[in-house]
Amino acid sequence: MAYKTDIEIAREAKKKPIQEIGARLGIPETELLPFGHDKAKVSAEFIAAQKDRPDGKLILVTAINPTPAGEGKTTTTVGLGDGLNAIGKNAAICIREASLGPCFGMKGGAAGGGLAQVVPMEDMNLHFTGDFHAITSAHNLLSAMIDNHIYWGNELGIDQRRIVWRRVMDMNDRALREIVTSLGGVANGFPGQGGFDITVASEVMAILCLATDIRDLQERLGRIIVAYTREREPVSARDLKADGAMTVLLAQAMQPNLVQTLENNPAFVHGGPFANIAHGCNSVIATKTALKLADYVVTEAGFGADLGAEKFMDIKCRMADLAPDAVVIVATVRAMKMNGGVKKEDLGAENVAAVHKGCENLGRHIANIRSFGVPAVVAINHFVTDTEAEIDEVMAYVDRQGSEAIVCRHWAEGSAGIADLSRRVAQLADSGMAQFAPLYPDEMSLFHKIETIAKRIYRADEVLADKRIRDQLHAWENAGYGHLPVCMAKTQYSFSTDPNLRGAPTGHSVPVREVRLSAGAGFVVVICGEIMTMPGLPRVPSAEQIRFNDAGQIEGLF
Amino acid sequence: MAYKTDIEIAREAKKKPIQEIGARLGIPETELLPFGHDKAKVSAEFIAAQKDRPDGKLILVTAINPTPAGEGKTTTTVGLGDGLNAIGKNAAICIREASLGPCFGMKGGAAGGGLAQVVPMEDMNLHFTGDFHAITSAHNLLSAMIDNHIYWGNELGIDQRRIVWRRVMDMNDRALREIVTSLGGVANGFPGQGGFDITVASEVMAILCLATDIRDLQERLGRIIVAYTREREPVSARDLKADGAMTVLLAQAMQPNLVQTLENNPAFVHGGPFANIAHGCNSVIATKTALKLADYVVTEAGFGADLGAEKFMDIKCRMADLAPDAVVIVATVRAMKMNGGVKKEDLGAENVAAVHKGCENLGRHIANIRSFGVPAVVAINHFVTDTEAEIDEVMAYVDRQGSEAIVCRHWAEGSAGIADLSRRVAQLADSGMAQFAPLYPDEMSLFHKIETIAKRIYRADEVLADKRIRDQLHAWENAGYGHLPVCMAKTQYSFSTDPNLRGAPTGHSVPVREVRLSAGAGFVVVICGEIMTMPGLPRVPSAEQIRFNDAGQIEGLF
Repeated sequence: MAYKTDIEIAREAKKKPIQEIGARLGIPETELLPFGHDKAKVSAEFIAAQKDRPDGKLILVTAINPTPAGEGKTTTTVGLGDGLNAIGKNAAICIREASLGPCFGMKGGAAGGGLAQVVPMEDMNLHFTGDFHAITSAHNLLSAMIDNHIYWGNELGIDQRRIVWRRVMDMNDRALREIVTSLGGVANGFPGQGGFDITVASEVMAILCLATDIRDLQERLGRIIVAYTREREPVSARDLKADGAMTVLLAQAMQPNLVQTLENNPAFVHGGPFANIAHGCNSVIATKTALKLADYVVTEAGFGADLGAEKFMDIKCRMADLAPDAVVIVATVRAMKMNGGVKKEDLGAENVAAVHKGCENLGRHIANIRSFGVPAVVAINHFVTDTEAEIDEVMAYVDRQGSEAIVCRHWAEGSAGIADLSRRVAQLADSGMAQFAPLYPDEMSLFHKIETIAKRIYRADEVLADKRIRDQLHAWENAGYGHLPVCMAKTQYSFSTDPNLRGAPTGHSVPVREVRLSAGAGFVVVICGEIMTMPGLPRVPSAEQIRFNDAGQIEGLF
Repeated sequence: MAYKTDIEIAREAKKKPIQEIGARLGIPETELLPFGHDKAKVSAEFIAAQKDRPDGKLILVTAINPTPAGEGKTTTTVGLGDGLNAIGKNAAICIREASLGPCFGMKGGAAGGGLAQVVPMEDMNLHFTGDFHAITSAHNLLSAMIDNHIYWGNELGIDQRRIVWRRVMDMNDRALREIVTSLGGVANGFPGQGGFDITVASEVMAILCLATDIRDLQERLGRIIVAYTREREPVSARDLKADGAMTVLLAQAMQPNLVQTLENNPAFVHGGPFANIAHGCNSVIATKTALKLADYVVTEAGFGADLGAEKFMDIKCRMADLAPDAVVIVATVRAMKMNGGVKKEDLGAENVAAVHKGCENLGRHIANIRSFGVPAVVAINHFVTDTEAEIDEVMAYVDRQGSEAIVCRHWAEGSAGIADLSRRVAQLADSGMAQFAPLYPDEMSLFHKIETIAKRIYRADEVLADKRIRDQLHAWENAGYGHLPVCMAKTQYSFSTDPNLRGAPTGHSVPVREVRLSAGAGFVVVICGEIMTMPGLPRVPSAEQIRFNDAGQIEGLF
């Protein structure tokens, strides 16, 4: 049986005018800001007017630790949204926007796959509605205003050695990671060190995704700490009077984007912060808007549940006063096998023992989700190579954990392949079982918060942090930042900080290399291990293959 | 009498849905790609289908040498478009898009003024339809692919010292003019010199504005020379296999944008190349599309007629096989006075003698335009401070030149104030008088082309260029680039290369400091004097004032 590629399926999509999709959610045409015929932003005025409506049920899709085999988290999010609609529910999905830069390296977009995709896929992998470009502009305006302030006399007394605000670009460009700026003489300013991160790593991105409205957006932008004085006093974006102009640049980007699935169900695609140095979830405003307009909202979080779900719960839900009603943990037999030690080239062969071993990883995620007080169900995202014995092994394992697993075939069959999961998720969400609470209270000290996550989620024995780091955390507590949640930046491939330690490791330590204050986003970033914030292009970048073919179709983007 | 500000007028605009504006030009709704309710792109398919329709008349609006007093070229372009429609003609205007970066420095946008404006003004000064962001992305993808090629082995043998492709950003950021890249060790590449220009200075911008369709776009992008080998052989974007992906990034941006004037007449706003190192005109595709859909198309060129009109004729019209039917030269009494030696603070006082002296500048532009074989009329853009005696002086002067001047009050009165000029321009355009020919033939040597412009347009005695520059021009001729037009980059404030030499200087020399090959755009840039390709922010950037007010309106953008 020959399967079509994702892009072939996406090209054949029978899209409806975006106004029809909006109408399904009760959004009048005048309140939709169209971008072409298949994308639209929902007006801020319309969103504000919905504030007294009741909220729908919130369903989080998360996953086991990712492996090169792929687990299909976005595909399952999209499939579940379609599945809920297919069983007669009014459901919407909320996912993140794709970053443009990596599409020209090796990564395709994040719009799902098979028969569970969001369209228009090509637009979503290119400029989409321009949100990331707006974030780039707002970020770099602030960068320019810092250097310009120093150039014209430095009234605020910025210590040029203590500028902590870099620049951003939505491109994989390793040459810009570490640069020296302002060479060439007096007219070009004071030479200094600098560098670029990729746009999704910008604190402006995290802020846009956590702000509840335009006023909150400006407040948060104003709080960004860009530098310190010689006396180590923070200098903020507000001190530089940059917050107003940044807000103006971001106003359109703050309005959530509406598109559709292959089955013409509504999908909000908005925001896309890094899942390591930021919280990795789509925007609060998209999620809240969807909850006002749909009875069920299916959303996802970045990476595996140890990073993505934890941050979804402890950062996004905490700040936005959201509470998930059910969680779906996505697993695949192939990813189980890899977690169980099988190499990628051997994934084709049946290996029940490896599946069994890999299930430990899944088991721990199930237990972790329970600790947030939310009912969970496992979705086994079916691959054609899966054998019955392997699937039975996962089912039996999950059953022994007192949980349940359901096989889903949405990739090959669309909503028809995910009806069982859809029914069960609706039931769980409606049951009122969820007693959501974040993992730690605001009042806990910053270091204790880190320890709590490391011990209760990662199951580490200890957190290693030298005096410099502990002192920094204390200093921020004294400066009034102690109530913030922490945002862990570690490898997504393991519960530990060692990417090769798959499965369910114990007895490990979590070394904290660096801590950073994202005062605007409202969290303290805790960096454990190497975190790359500006990717490079591979030896043969996919850009070399991307082109229009003779039929005018884009080739090579996926 | 209290006048409203431009932004106040723009906010009160009674905009029609963009589909209605498109319908006026015969564009069906399905062929308009909407961006909100008041902006749209015209589909490439629709444009291609119009190719056998007859063309309307092409009217160029140009101006005397600009002064700080302002001459109102865009305002007059917009006013004339409204004026032609008001006298019953089917007219469209074509102008350039505004660059985002400078709006946060000190410059407002380029959407006209008073009652002769294009709306939505705020969008046009911010992200608009994302064209400039797409250009930035395409340009920087190519930059990243150059360094990436070297990083992975440098198969093409690029000499890192001879990389001629910089990076771009749509932001005024002097710190990025001259930088050192790839610091930080092996993983970040080979340290080297680099820098950023502002996006409008990108060759990609010039290419987008000269390409006739998407195929021509890719051809031109492929021809961009990014570096040379040690053996001085050029390395192109096609050699790096970057042209396909760049084209994909630019495909949407290639479709011209349709908006409207305050009087609801159609306006194409598309492309915005620098008017010094590039040709300074809106896109060929917008102009050609407008000519297919309207009977009269009013367009403008950058700076004064010595730079803008010359490049419009010798670069844009030559390449795109366009021929203007009439030219309007915009002048103001105030700018005449400044050209006559009056300081800005003294502009309020009547000074007929200074007007008389300043008229020399106008007179030379009139004669120059004649040398292209196109009939010209002078538009005196009326200011409230102008006295009758001053206006009479200009009228009499123009009359002595065998030309005619018409006073226009479109800024204060809209189309009603520009009826006389509109009637006269329509008459000239319909007369068949125009016998357009560019200033020099393709076959002329590059240096001779420079001399021809310097002597016949600038009225210089000689061109100064050392052996290195002459050798470079010969080398390009030998390499097959001798047929290209030249693109002069000099100060816009004078016919000469000295910005302080106002009026109509003679006896001067034109020193050529540098020549650059824009092989993709298809011209040789001739740099005479200091040309700034990355502006800085002023001491108090307008970004500090830009914000939303309590009514949700943007303040400080204009």
